[in-house]
Amino acid sequence: MVAKGSIVDARRLTDFATKALQKVGVPEEDARITARILVATDLRGVDSHGVAHLAPLYIKGIKEGRINVKPQVKVFSHAPSTAIMDGDRGLGFVVGHWAMMEAIHRAETIGAGFVAVRNSNHFGAGAYYAMMALECDMIGMAMTNTRPEVVAPGSTKPAVGTNPLAVAVPAGTKPPFVLDMATSVVAVGKFQIARREGKSVPEGWAIDKKGKPITDPTKRVRGEGGLLPLGGTPKFGSYKGFGLGVLVDILCGVLSGLSASILRGEKMGTNHFFGALRIDSFSPVENFKKSIDEMVEAIEALPTLPGVKKIYVAGGYEAEIEKDRKANGIPLHFAVIQELKEVAEELGIEYDL
Amino acid sequence: MVAKGSIVDARRLTDFATKALQKVGVPEEDARITARILVATDLRGVDSHGVAHLAPLYIKGIKEGRINVKPQVKVFSHAPSTAIMDGDRGLGFVVGHWAMMEAIHRAETIGAGFVAVRNSNHFGAGAYYAMMALECDMIGMAMTNTRPEVVAPGSTKPAVGTNPLAVAVPAGTKPPFVLDMATSVVAVGKFQIARREGKSVPEGWAIDKKGKPITDPTKRVRGEGGLLPLGGTPKFGSYKGFGLGVLVDILCGVLSGLSASILRGEKMGTNHFFGALRIDSFSPVENFKKSIDEMVEAIEALPTLPGVKKIYVAGGYEAEIEKDRKANGIPLHFAVIQELKEVAEELGIEYDL
Repeated sequence: MVAKGSIVDARRLTDFATKALQKVGVPEEDARITARILVATDLRGVDSHGVAHLAPLYIKGIKEGRINVKPQVKVFSHAPSTAIMDGDRGLGFVVGHWAMMEAIHRAETIGAGFVAVRNSNHFGAGAYYAMMALECDMIGMAMTNTRPEVVAPGSTKPAVGTNPLAVAVPAGTKPPFVLDMATSVVAVGKFQIARREGKSVPEGWAIDKKGKPITDPTKRVRGEGGLLPLGGTPKFGSYKGFGLGVLVDILCGVLSGLSASILRGEKMGTNHFFGALRIDSFSPVENFKKSIDEMVEAIEALPTLPGVKKIYVAGGYEAEIEKDRKANGIPLHFAVIQELKEVAEELGIEYDL
Repeated sequence: MVAKGSIVDARRLTDFATKALQKVGVPEEDARITARILVATDLRGVDSHGVAHLAPLYIKGIKEGRINVKPQVKVFSHAPSTAIMDGDRGLGFVVGHWAMMEAIHRAETIGAGFVAVRNSNHFGAGAYYAMMALECDMIGMAMTNTRPEVVAPGSTKPAVGTNPLAVAVPAGTKPPFVLDMATSVVAVGKFQIARREGKSVPEGWAIDKKGKPITDPTKRVRGEGGLLPLGGTPKFGSYKGFGLGVLVDILCGVLSGLSASILRGEKMGTNHFFGALRIDSFSPVENFKKSIDEMVEAIEALPTLPGVKKIYVAGGYEAEIEKDRKANGIPLHFAVIQELKEVAEELGIEYDL
């Protein structure tokens, strides 16, 4: 990895990202929240959703006015366990962070809390928000809709986004259960990686406008054909992945007071849905965590296929990476390093990673 | 279809199933709830989960003492929006019905309601319970764990059940969104159908104990190898289907105060999780329903692949079948008719379908 880039310290990376965001007008607290989420995502090995996006997505989005650095976020609530939030086109990290806090706060007193968010922006990896519930001994969930890229089973035009959903469940001594999944077979990022590496992609990830499999990642044209929903084809349950994608769109886009993304075209924005369930409003927390530990241990102990080193429960692999990166630093790709250096120069801050 | 069986009237079928259940000791109200759910499921075309199960699953289970016809169902609540329920090994339909009513009742005042249920039995199709929320202008959800039959990615032994989850969302003039999906590629019923029809199944549904694809449905041995999680293989996202299966097990089995099904062996019982979200605690109901209608219409209007007649949103196909069967009756397979006739004779009730 070092040959392809270099290893950086998580704390310094957080400080750097904070400073860069402040330089484009983000208030300090919001810049720090954003930086912390980006670096937490890199620490867990989800490099596609961390600081690699700082320059091309967020700083660019701010400069071009798509992201509002001083949003007037509003919360409306009509029942004790629910709320909607208008993000006023703020940074998705800041809006998402406060919305999840709102869901957790409601769950603290009521047992369950849910917040649907409209008019936000890309919030990075949903796992972070779901995991905010863990230290409160809650089950957390986070979803976001994205621009339509996924076809309905039997169709050739995008109907929903890759619409990821994330759920986190606390454990005792084992790593928490953390599922963070696009509802398509693969996320868009897998095509970016294949393009960068000059590789083909397998049949079954995407189709062209005639319904034929796309294997050359450079041949994917937005709006014509699309990614396949989880399951791939009807014979293997693609109505399930598609149904989950529509559900995420309903919870994020429609329940928050807007409409489905298929109806909104380019101005759809990004909308989220967050939830928290307090475990001890169901069962004693210690018993629950012990049961989760035992479940994870039993699954990890299952027999493996030849060539498989370990069976993982969702989040287990990322926890191993996190342990390593917290101790040894975060390897960044040279292209990302290069972008960060350019950002530093452009904004007049020191590149000290 | 008539050549393979005959057409029966929904109301008479409900009365027949009610009487049969009463004859084995189920109180009238509980018998009627159960019969109504079974027939509602047949009406929607989900023949695998309707009256076909009356004799072999429920009446047999009652006679053999696995199902308690006079359960002392208990509800425990530690927060306004949540509860757990102990089903005392009652009929899954009765326990499920009351648990979903409890979730809806809590959502009425609080906005959201969730009930985790332990010590229940097979509750049929989850869609019914999720759909109970529709007439209250709520989003409903229902899940159940089942005996482990699904392998973890990379393993050859079952780790979780097919653990279906169902979500229902009200629409205005269009059919409601109703997603009801096993978290495996296919449910067990697809193997039963292939066996009955003497057909093979595609590679990608299940593997044997060596990890090789099973295509002969008679070769599936419970406990050795297993069904594949939705996604099929790691390359196509099987960690997602597996993660959803584990999540359902956590919400049903662990949150209800028991433990994961992998730890419980034959005595795991069946456990559920129900939820309801009141739409107007987020956004005005009429706007919401109109948006769902518009979304469904936009998806249905998408271009189709050659040979595809119509693009469906989840629940749309079942709504068409329901309309037809409500008008013209329910076609029952001759094997089901035969079983119902035997039940009638055995229990001394009239077969009048």
